[in-house]
Amino acid sequence: MKEFEATFRLEAAFGHADVTSLAAGWVAEAEADVGILSLQVVGSTGGITTIEYEPGALADLERALEKIAPVEGRYRHNERWHDGNGFSHLRSALIGTSLTVPIRSGALVLGTWQQIAVFNFDNRSRERALVGLLLE
Amino acid sequence: MKEFEATFRLEAAFGHADVTSLAAGWVAEAEADVGILSLQVVGSTGGITTIEYEPGALADLERALEKIAPVEGRYRHNERWHDGNGFSHLRSALIGTSLTVPIRSGALVLGTWQQIAVFNFDNRSRERALVGLLLE
Amino acid sequence: MKEFEATFRLEAAFGHADVTSLAAGWVAEAEADVGILSLQVVGSTGGITTIEYEPGALADLERALEKIAPVEGRYRHNERWHDGNGFSHLRSALIGTSLTVPIRSGALVLGTWQQIAVFNFDNRSRERALVGLLLE
Repeated sequence: MKEFEATFRLEAAFGHADVTSLAAGWVAEAEADVGILSLQVVGSTGGITTIEYEPGALADLERALEKIAPVEGRYRHNERWHDGNGFSHLRSALIGTSLTVPIRSGALVLGTWQQIAVFNFDNRSRERALVGLLLE
Repeated sequence: MKEFEATFRLEAAFGHADVTSLAAGWVAEAEADVGILSLQVVGSTGGITTIEYEPGALADLERALEKIAPVEGRYRHNERWHDGNGFSHLRSALIGTSLTVPIRSGALVLGTWQQIAVFNFDNRSRERALVGLLLE
Repeated sequence: MKEFEATFRLEAAFGHADVTSLAAGWVAEAEADVGILSLQVVGSTGGITTIEYEPGALADLERALEKIAPVEGRYRHNERWHDGNGFSHLRSALIGTSLTVPIRSGALVLGTWQQIAVFNFDNRSRERALVGLLLE
């Protein structure tokens, strides 16, 4: 079991970063041949999933989330707490904050066009932590 | 590898419970320092995710699910089986029934406002089982 | 740690297969009593979740995805790449491509009506790979 952590400064609402190379580096550093990498974006307004990390697909995902959980929508969370990030909690609960990726032959099992993307859905720019635990 | 299980009586359609303390207790009981906790809500109408567990954010999530999978909607599942829980299966498939949470320094890796919530989406109150497997 | 892999020829847009028996066979082959099975559908247009695998519930899920990510919608991804599978990437990012299932008493922890379903969301029929890593 090996532990890793990195932090990212991400934009508000739909800030994103491609962490595929970072995660691949962790696998290389651990010299793992077979195992799983469990990733967690820490916090109730973060997110993680896999996607073809290119501006078009990302814009499509942002638009879909904007329909389900619009930035300017009305939220019971905001009425109670007045922090304006009701949409952020909703996006995070729907996309999820954890992801498990298998490792085989010393590499993450991902498709050619499949990248690991982390998100900051909060209504302000955030320094977000990504934690990785590697089990062999 | 340690096994845990707990059951909850949850309301219909969007019954929920905060299991963060329970899961933290499992980690403490196992005296785990570093590892992962794999959680599964058993059944095709359950759900699990992380969210700020407060009435506002929960109401926002319920409203979003009501748009995507309304309780009173028309479902092919219901036409075939007449059990009225088509919306339940849809909500469960979208939110998911399993969650993996890393453990570091003897604690679950979660944000300050981030809780683990389990759901019963079925159209009747259910006794739901949560199974946890802890790997060090 | 044991490795497994299988491939499936799946239809376009919402091709699906029930892999519950296959995964149960992997658990039996590994003679695992307690553990976790980490599954990954490889590729940026695949998907995996649990659902009651019957035509009604599957049709309901397809209709819900058609609302969120319609096959005939307009996508920024398509405008850039002209490959017509913008909806596929969106569906995959929302449903997810990985799933972790606990194993207890030598069996996958699943409800009676809960099956593991893999999906091909691409706009053409695809040979899709499912990778399973079993940790005891």
